[in-house]
Amino acid sequence: MINPFDLDEPRKLFKGHNPQCEISYKLAGCSEEEIKLVAKETGMGLIIMGENGSTISSTPFSEGWYADAITDWPGQAELYKMEKILFHEKSEFQDLWFFSETNNSLQHGKVVILDGYLQLTEKDEFAYQEMLSHLPLCSVPNPKKVLVVGGGDGGILREVSRHSSVEQIDICEIDKMVIDVYKRFFPNIAVGYEDPRVNVHICDGVKFMQSVPEGTYDAIILDAFVSMGPGAEELSDQHFLKSIARALRPGGVMSTPAASYWHKDFEEIADSISNCRKVFKGSVNYAWTTVPAYSSGIIGFMLCSTGGAAVDFKHPVNPLNPENYGVATVPPQVLQLRDAHSCIPAPYFRQEGH
Amino acid sequence: MINPFDLDEPRKLFKGHNPQCEISYKLAGCSEEEIKLVAKETGMGLIIMGENGSTISSTPFSEGWYADAITDWPGQAELYKMEKILFHEKSEFQDLWFFSETNNSLQHGKVVILDGYLQLTEKDEFAYQEMLSHLPLCSVPNPKKVLVVGGGDGGILREVSRHSSVEQIDICEIDKMVIDVYKRFFPNIAVGYEDPRVNVHICDGVKFMQSVPEGTYDAIILDAFVSMGPGAEELSDQHFLKSIARALRPGGVMSTPAASYWHKDFEEIADSISNCRKVFKGSVNYAWTTVPAYSSGIIGFMLCSTGGAAVDFKHPVNPLNPENYGVATVPPQVLQLRDAHSCIPAPYFRQEGH
Repeated sequence: MINPFDLDEPRKLFKGHNPQCEISYKLAGCSEEEIKLVAKETGMGLIIMGENGSTISSTPFSEGWYADAITDWPGQAELYKMEKILFHEKSEFQDLWFFSETNNSLQHGKVVILDGYLQLTEKDEFAYQEMLSHLPLCSVPNPKKVLVVGGGDGGILREVSRHSSVEQIDICEIDKMVIDVYKRFFPNIAVGYEDPRVNVHICDGVKFMQSVPEGTYDAIILDAFVSMGPGAEELSDQHFLKSIARALRPGGVMSTPAASYWHKDFEEIADSISNCRKVFKGSVNYAWTTVPAYSSGIIGFMLCSTGGAAVDFKHPVNPLNPENYGVATVPPQVLQLRDAHSCIPAPYFRQEGH
Repeated sequence: MINPFDLDEPRKLFKGHNPQCEISYKLAGCSEEEIKLVAKETGMGLIIMGENGSTISSTPFSEGWYADAITDWPGQAELYKMEKILFHEKSEFQDLWFFSETNNSLQHGKVVILDGYLQLTEKDEFAYQEMLSHLPLCSVPNPKKVLVVGGGDGGILREVSRHSSVEQIDICEIDKMVIDVYKRFFPNIAVGYEDPRVNVHICDGVKFMQSVPEGTYDAIILDAFVSMGPGAEELSDQHFLKSIARALRPGGVMSTPAASYWHKDFEEIADSISNCRKVFKGSVNYAWTTVPAYSSGIIGFMLCSTGGAAVDFKHPVNPLNPENYGVATVPPQVLQLRDAHSCIPAPYFRQEGH
């Protein structure tokens, strides 16, 4: 039995790609016979592969459900009931679409699929955005210059905005489409762009980091989605890591998503950790938070600092001021959660106490 | 469009129940037309309802996938690829079956469905069992008498067994089938029964607690699966809570599963908390840990103590000795995880530091 997730190049299963992104096998750009074959072979129902490898899957008998089935978690898939597909566009870099969920207001709200991966849902994006931003920024005193690589949706900018010590927020996003789509459809996330300290650079992150003077930034937040998997190309790319370390001041900090510690192959995380240790001569830590929309319900983070002033990510020296919303319209949600229920430790605090 | 999960009595969709528990609509005890109707109406593909309300669902085009779709999380379902259904039995109390997953060794191992709910998977049961046991037992000095209500699988017994101060472990499980099945198929979980301190009582938990002298136990661990949902009947049943409090000594502790804090209706957890506060005059706390197999990837716990010696669940006074396995064959996994990667706080330690 073929499992498409075991194949090196799943797109080879078939070439069809449906520009309208219609979740209906009749419009999938390939014959019904092909579909049925794949459905039968895979046991996963219909799978439409875009040329860029993006995956849109549904089963003819459960049309209207989106199946989040990713390579790293074979034998599993998360189904989301789709109310309506609201948008689909393909830039020269990525394929982006999103749908509203049935019981929208009660559940995940809009669900965004970027290059075939569930990027975020309106319900729980805050947990990822807050932790990826505050774990590093709360670990250094008075961060002034911050670089966000990727993060076109603006959510990280929204969180960085809560830090009053910050004077300059550069964001380097290669795909303008992402920025435009979020500004148009996700005001609560793209609100980050309204911070006057933000400078937008539409370009390649590595090239940008190499173009700035050495030691420019206090913190660099990597929000490039591909690095979320345990495959984490970036984290095994010394050239890339060195570009980050170079752009950071001594004792500067970097954060990036990493795999869930529930992933079967924890060694891949261990590899990421040791790869980071080769480049970052300060602290190198693995952290995590819960995000139901991501496989296994949690997402990991790598937190690294360059040599110089010691950084202790487990004991943040620069607590977030929950009163200061920046351009955000609500206080940090995870902290709120903690305040409301004192026995729920916020991820921020998960770094402490041991 | 009918959503079976919105109905008061989903079983009314149709009456068919297949004693062989064969995941094939042809053997589902109802006509193909009925099946197709329901599949069409629900968008969820085939749904087989047992008379006890248990649900076994799959879609004809993805036959061999188990869909974990529960009422509390409408619009979502988790799919598990089934290699083989290994067992199915129905006692006078419950319907129990389990399957092996494809890529068994790499993924969840065997997955157990109890009364239509995913009870546990071999991969992550330890997180639930360890935390439900150690959070209360590590919060009181030298616990001697422990009662487990439910927990027929033996996993809680396995964890209690790690505590050398314990002299007596009573377990009150109403369904002997569960005990027999776990002893036969899940030796690593049922190993808990090998502890000589264990006394098995096949009876109703409430009746048993009312039969023992007041103040008998240092700790009572409630592992009755139904209470995992936010509906948590037990936690809204003052009579039930009072039976627990009565059986506990002053300053004794109780733990029970509770809903995920990601559940849309957090107020139901708040209700559970306030209901517990009415009965337990000591500490009442909500805690949680990550268990990928459960909806949203986390499971909550209620931790309560009776009036008397103060109990601080956030600062355990009775640390677990990881060297002492009791009858278990491996050290506590969550602690191991923490030791291996010091930036991953174990749930045990999540109670500290703030």
